[in-house]
Amino acid sequence: MLKTPPSFSSDDYEARVKRLKKSMEARSIDVLIVSDPANIAYLCGYTAWSFSVHQALVIALNAQPIWWGRAWDAGDAAKISHIKPDQVFGYPDHFVASSEHHPMEHLAATMIEHGWEQKTIGVEKDCFYLSSKACEVLQFKLSEARFHDATSLVNRLRLVKSQGELDCMRCAAEITELMQMAVVDRIAPGMRKSDLAAEVARVALFGTKDFGGDYAAIQPLMPSAGEKSAPHVNWGTERLASEGITLVELAGCYRRYHVPLARPFYFGHPSKAIGRAADALTGALDAAIATARAGEQACEVARVVTAKLERHGFDHSDRRIGYPVGLAFPPDWSEEALSLRKTDETVLKPNMTLHICPSLWNDDVRMFLSETVVIGKKGAASCMTDFPRRLFVK
Amino acid sequence: MLKTPPSFSSDDYEARVKRLKKSMEARSIDVLIVSDPANIAYLCGYTAWSFSVHQALVIALNAQPIWWGRAWDAGDAAKISHIKPDQVFGYPDHFVASSEHHPMEHLAATMIEHGWEQKTIGVEKDCFYLSSKACEVLQFKLSEARFHDATSLVNRLRLVKSQGELDCMRCAAEITELMQMAVVDRIAPGMRKSDLAAEVARVALFGTKDFGGDYAAIQPLMPSAGEKSAPHVNWGTERLASEGITLVELAGCYRRYHVPLARPFYFGHPSKAIGRAADALTGALDAAIATARAGEQACEVARVVTAKLERHGFDHSDRRIGYPVGLAFPPDWSEEALSLRKTDETVLKPNMTLHICPSLWNDDVRMFLSETVVIGKKGAASCMTDFPRRLFVK
Repeated sequence: MLKTPPSFSSDDYEARVKRLKKSMEARSIDVLIVSDPANIAYLCGYTAWSFSVHQALVIALNAQPIWWGRAWDAGDAAKISHIKPDQVFGYPDHFVASSEHHPMEHLAATMIEHGWEQKTIGVEKDCFYLSSKACEVLQFKLSEARFHDATSLVNRLRLVKSQGELDCMRCAAEITELMQMAVVDRIAPGMRKSDLAAEVARVALFGTKDFGGDYAAIQPLMPSAGEKSAPHVNWGTERLASEGITLVELAGCYRRYHVPLARPFYFGHPSKAIGRAADALTGALDAAIATARAGEQACEVARVVTAKLERHGFDHSDRRIGYPVGLAFPPDWSEEALSLRKTDETVLKPNMTLHICPSLWNDDVRMFLSETVVIGKKGAASCMTDFPRRLFVK
Repeated sequence: MLKTPPSFSSDDYEARVKRLKKSMEARSIDVLIVSDPANIAYLCGYTAWSFSVHQALVIALNAQPIWWGRAWDAGDAAKISHIKPDQVFGYPDHFVASSEHHPMEHLAATMIEHGWEQKTIGVEKDCFYLSSKACEVLQFKLSEARFHDATSLVNRLRLVKSQGELDCMRCAAEITELMQMAVVDRIAPGMRKSDLAAEVARVALFGTKDFGGDYAAIQPLMPSAGEKSAPHVNWGTERLASEGITLVELAGCYRRYHVPLARPFYFGHPSKAIGRAADALTGALDAAIATARAGEQACEVARVVTAKLERHGFDHSDRRIGYPVGLAFPPDWSEEALSLRKTDETVLKPNMTLHICPSLWNDDVRMFLSETVVIGKKGAASCMTDFPRRLFVK
């Protein structure tokens, strides 16, 4: 691992770009416009918070990758990534948040300068960082090009992690353990959820003596059953009640790599129903980890979880029970290239990293707990964190 | 201010929806699909972190607003917002991150159920939360409807803040001061930037005795000149050098309302050039605040800043020098409905809140500093925070 950005070597950079180009060729894509900040970071190491404005990495089969974005950010883009300085293109500020000029007019002009106006162009159509307007302007200005939806093309290349990436995730996992440990130590009836979030944030970024932490792509979720709550609420302005369940889902992050972990907490004496739900979820998660092995299909892991929960009399409502994780930026830490659900026949491979998160969410019980695992060469998956897998009663 | 979500009253809710419908009518929009999480939160008070998947608020002229999103989130959407329980529509999980089913097929079906398939439908085409694919599916499934780009329609309604909103921003401002004070107290040569970020995060979320803080839409930016840096890098894995400049731009956040503040820090003895740059920027910011008054145009504030900097021999490179702030979600705290730049003739009004952030960014000097201000009924704008406006030398 390199000490300063980018976090991977120029050899890795060249290998990643080469592998992408092969994948583009197989789909007859001449030029790929990458909008997802995680895909950009994976390919060239660029991680700055400039994804609040339009930006892209442009990879043509027969050219060096191009970084394109706001001119202010462009000035240093080559210094903090593997992109060559003469392959950085910036648009002036009159394109930013303007109703008269759209940044994609500038990108289209840049593409034309490169002679790509009649090529087959891949775009990440279902990525949140390629707005509908952005794609429309590109298609209008490059009317002779053929556009091809390349959503998840780069994401799929990221599924199997390299040793360097796993090293980052092991650092993230250490931070995750420290964060959930801080929750176990501090959580108390009547405390402000924001105070708990404050301590968790401090621990997350302080990291360890040896390495500091990064911000996570999703801020900690802290729903409480029975309150004004929902599965994806953060801490808000609420205080913890003196009794009942609170769920804490969070991720440590190191160099943009995430290891999520969710645990349920209970104040008071949990009812038998709560205890049974916790046992059912824990059993389902155990079974999922045992099933998630190289050669197995994603759907099989989901099937095992659903079967386990049904055996305990619970309906999992066909929610997907997991997804790949790793390199991520807000608003999501999922890598979206596969889903642990009954229709996904993707075959699991060694060094895939998955967040497995079965949940129960009905009028009686609201609970989830999770593990992030790495698929091994053989045998069951290994958990990336070492943290008691149970309902914590306080 | 209400204690639990939503953070505003049902009277405010009705008034906001009514004002939006008037604005829709003026543009002949029958049904508006709102994708921007900040616009959704402004209209109905819903703030959960479910914007990692497709969701929307749908407002038709002659109907109650509809919340639409993932079924798991839908279950409680009415509890944490002003939306009526029978106006909540959720799509099943097989639509999530699927290459076979797109959530917008479900939204289109919901629109057809309501008889809106031949209406004029407004969509936020340049919002990051409406992907290109999402818009395409909607247009394909609702082929008899007329689609109209309504980007910024809701954002413009948010420009002038209510007293309740200003109360939230005053709480955010208190947190902002505490955060920058923590930077002044802690920043030291050689320290890990992540340690500084950890302390800032703790302070941000702990807030005050009276109220806790929320996560900000942008994580603290901490570029250092002369290093592998850029204007929008966060803390990363770097240590602070023993000499030179570091810029810290951050925002306190309360109930999703933001008050950003940027300050420059210097270790060692700043050169005369650095001193002159700091004086020029401070003078430009003073002049901007004095100019930003009700009745003045946005472009005039930009003109004054450029003139001030040019008088000191600096070129501002035509970067926009500010934008409205308030309610926000990642990846941006800008409200995007106006820009302080020479082409924007928007007239400033009382209770608009602006982040004014002039910058110098060239090979010799890299510096910015900022204030968040509220436009008064008369006279100069007022700063929301009370924090020394200068280069901090340590």
